[in-house]
Amino acid sequence: MKIVTNASEMKNLSITYGKAGRSLGLVPTMGALHDGHVSLITTAREHCDIVVTSIFVNPLQFAPSEDFAKYPRPFDKDCATAEKAGCDVVFAPDAKEMYPTGYSTFVDVETITSYLCGANRPGHFKGVATVVLKLFNVVSPQVAVFGQKDAQQCLVIRRMVRDLNCSVRLVFAPTVREKDGLAMSSRNSYLSSDERGQAVFIYKGICAAVSLYGGGERNGAALQGTIAGALSGAPLLSVEYVEIVDMDTVSPVSVLGAPALAAIAVRTKQTKTRLIDNAVLGGTF
Amino acid sequence: MKIVTNASEMKNLSITYGKAGRSLGLVPTMGALHDGHVSLITTAREHCDIVVTSIFVNPLQFAPSEDFAKYPRPFDKDCATAEKAGCDVVFAPDAKEMYPTGYSTFVDVETITSYLCGANRPGHFKGVATVVLKLFNVVSPQVAVFGQKDAQQCLVIRRMVRDLNCSVRLVFAPTVREKDGLAMSSRNSYLSSDERGQAVFIYKGICAAVSLYGGGERNGAALQGTIAGALSGAPLLSVEYVEIVDMDTVSPVSVLGAPALAAIAVRTKQTKTRLIDNAVLGGTF
Repeated sequence: MKIVTNASEMKNLSITYGKAGRSLGLVPTMGALHDGHVSLITTAREHCDIVVTSIFVNPLQFAPSEDFAKYPRPFDKDCATAEKAGCDVVFAPDAKEMYPTGYSTFVDVETITSYLCGANRPGHFKGVATVVLKLFNVVSPQVAVFGQKDAQQCLVIRRMVRDLNCSVRLVFAPTVREKDGLAMSSRNSYLSSDERGQAVFIYKGICAAVSLYGGGERNGAALQGTIAGALSGAPLLSVEYVEIVDMDTVSPVSVLGAPALAAIAVRTKQTKTRLIDNAVLGGTF
Repeated sequence: MKIVTNASEMKNLSITYGKAGRSLGLVPTMGALHDGHVSLITTAREHCDIVVTSIFVNPLQFAPSEDFAKYPRPFDKDCATAEKAGCDVVFAPDAKEMYPTGYSTFVDVETITSYLCGANRPGHFKGVATVVLKLFNVVSPQVAVFGQKDAQQCLVIRRMVRDLNCSVRLVFAPTVREKDGLAMSSRNSYLSSDERGQAVFIYKGICAAVSLYGGGERNGAALQGTIAGALSGAPLLSVEYVEIVDMDTVSPVSVLGAPALAAIAVRTKQTKTRLIDNAVLGGTF
């Protein structure tokens, strides 16, 4: 497995693969790879000849108050995990390589970023869209794989790709879960033991909504209510949002006529860890 | 010469050319082609096998108060001009093709757009950067040619290409002028006969600055003053800005140590036509 830290070198490598007729798949990550990321790499492998995993803790997508500094960066372990999963190239630029002095261009997906995580993390999706477009331009992948756990991110990237006429094909891979149902996340490592115990209530909320929807419920407030009810069993979780939203507009839906996203964000009370999860009701990504 | 109005069709055509080993040059225009555009097409021809000229009056780069509605759109004449100049493909999408319902992604080059035209036309360069990035993604050109007459646009696109890791090579072609020195512009057709007579004073201002710089003057205010002095001979021209700015930061320079841009914008008093011109002092683009 190759490790590349320079954007020009990565670009040249992509051109070389392209000329040799090899298709490229990109898995953008911030490192701290877990089985969720492994599944993204495996998915990319199924679609492409060469899998490039980017590892970059993107400062642009963290607000000043957020966990950029403490975000885990186990680089050697990540490389071993990526290689074992079938990754061919790790692209791991540093912040100066991605945002050199004088950097001043930003990609902003408006409207759909005013809801959910976008409403609670100002500037977050601008950082995400900007870095992902840069990665697309550096790697020129035919396919890029993102995890459905970051549902709004998937919708934002899909909107950006459509709007900016990007050529990449997007694949959204299902959320991988711990045995008790907690969605895998690099941030789970922040949790106290008590918080970890109660974190499963997020999944219980998701399951309650899926089950209620399965039973025929199409009222947004009722579905929202059942999630909130499940979460109330976990006093260490402070709810940031529980929403049932349209898959295109990301705006709240009062009566479901098309597939909708049930989305949850909580913050834990002891370690202030932010956790998100979601399910698509009546459809897929 | 092919005329393509659909972005997917244009994309497929570019892929076909690419597979056949033909290099592509893009000349982005808003139509109303004059000899300045012809020179851009000729320049693109020198660099590439296939020249694509885009003709698109981009609503995003016009403020509500500006001349979007009355901007000239002589499409058949433009196609004849482009073909005669050696253009192989005209890409002429309509606004709905470029910005379909739900469109919400924008590219913003910050900082350098707070000066000159950016300061006087809020949102203008956001519109320019967005449409140019879309055109790059649709056409995938190896080379794109822009006219130096729109100097700040050149600097904004250069910044965007560097920042977003775009693969296109930029070529900035010299300004083409009327016999009396007025920079060619589609907006010259708006001018009254009296305004047209006085418009040459813009070029006189440029020449005065170039001459003073040639004589050794390196003081920004002195160079600015000589331009303002020349423009004062034209009572029908209302000065929007006269600036000597850094080529990278686009911020005003007090003492010139590196190449600098002498830039002028005026608005005519009868037809309210906005005209711009510039010269690089001590260097090139």
